[in-house]
Amino acid sequence: MSSSISSRTIMFGKFNVTSQVFHVTQHSFALVNLKPLLPGHILVSPLRVLPRLSDLTKDEVADLFLTATRIQRTLKRLYKADAFNVAVQDGEAAGQSVPHVHCHIIPRTRGDPGGDDKVHEWLEGEEGNIARHQKQAEGGGDVERKAAKWVEDDERKPRSMDEMTSEARWLREELAKDEEQDSTRL
Amino acid sequence: MSSSISSRTIMFGKFNVTSQVFHVTQHSFALVNLKPLLPGHILVSPLRVLPRLSDLTKDEVADLFLTATRIQRTLKRLYKADAFNVAVQDGEAAGQSVPHVHCHIIPRTRGDPGGDDKVHEWLEGEEGNIARHQKQAEGGGDVERKAAKWVEDDERKPRSMDEMTSEARWLREELAKDEEQDSTRL
Repeated sequence: MSSSISSRTIMFGKFNVTSQVFHVTQHSFALVNLKPLLPGHILVSPLRVLPRLSDLTKDEVADLFLTATRIQRTLKRLYKADAFNVAVQDGEAAGQSVPHVHCHIIPRTRGDPGGDDKVHEWLEGEEGNIARHQKQAEGGGDVERKAAKWVEDDERKPRSMDEMTSEARWLREELAKDEEQDSTRL
Repeated sequence: MSSSISSRTIMFGKFNVTSQVFHVTQHSFALVNLKPLLPGHILVSPLRVLPRLSDLTKDEVADLFLTATRIQRTLKRLYKADAFNVAVQDGEAAGQSVPHVHCHIIPRTRGDPGGDDKVHEWLEGEEGNIARHQKQAEGGGDVERKAAKWVEDDERKPRSMDEMTSEARWLREELAKDEEQDSTRL
């Protein structure tokens, strides 16, 4: 496995996602997805493992969404995005699968396959079940659901750690370019 | 029409929504919906009429999401919410209908009719077309779409201005209670 970008271990819920992380701020981190719903679909989370927005301090909430907004600039350039879905499923009854606050950032382009509700269908359905994807990546458990659901979900193959580490590295480099260019704006 | 809560005129895109506003901060405002997808579905927007998150300053982004998170506390109490969908459709290709940044806050409870993707289907479909609802409330335009779509959408009747003003007043009072109780937290 390639070396990870972050020098510290970063946990997303109970999962070690250090290799998937491409950006770390004072309170937040951004990670690439094992199974992005659309190209460039990333997540932003607080460094502290807490389930709900209401568990965070003001500084953590502000940093989370400022980080999410700042990263959009780079994703827009890299993925030629016309728009973004920015979504937090804040609690299980809202579709949250990993009990650690995470903000989905999904680049959208006109006419992309995420139109007509597809992005949100995916987000709430098995396609968006990040907990299950991470478990599969770690080779653990969840066997019954895998057997039952794997086929429908199979079109988006989980990516290898090397692939994600490499994407994370690329995003970090591209993000750094934008930050150098204009350190005063978002 | 009842008197509005805010002493200033507040615009949501091209719509005067002053009567629907229940909370105003330095940079943001919160308004009740003409056709809430679920009870307690509200919107938070920056006071400046700008279409995209990337158009906002850091202070505006931070204030927007801090306001959204703070309001959840009151909505949780009033609507006995177990969870929330927090969503920004940032640009038309992501389903945005009014070109003014707005963050949907949708209280969720276990087993509510918004489960199985319904909330997001509504959000992206005609049910979530806030622009059209506001136009209908003002008695203007959009006749063809109304003719074509009104029937399916008709189960959720647009609410009267009096009803919304009254809800806005209630929410403002309840929000004030929570803010008094604990001014140091979110």
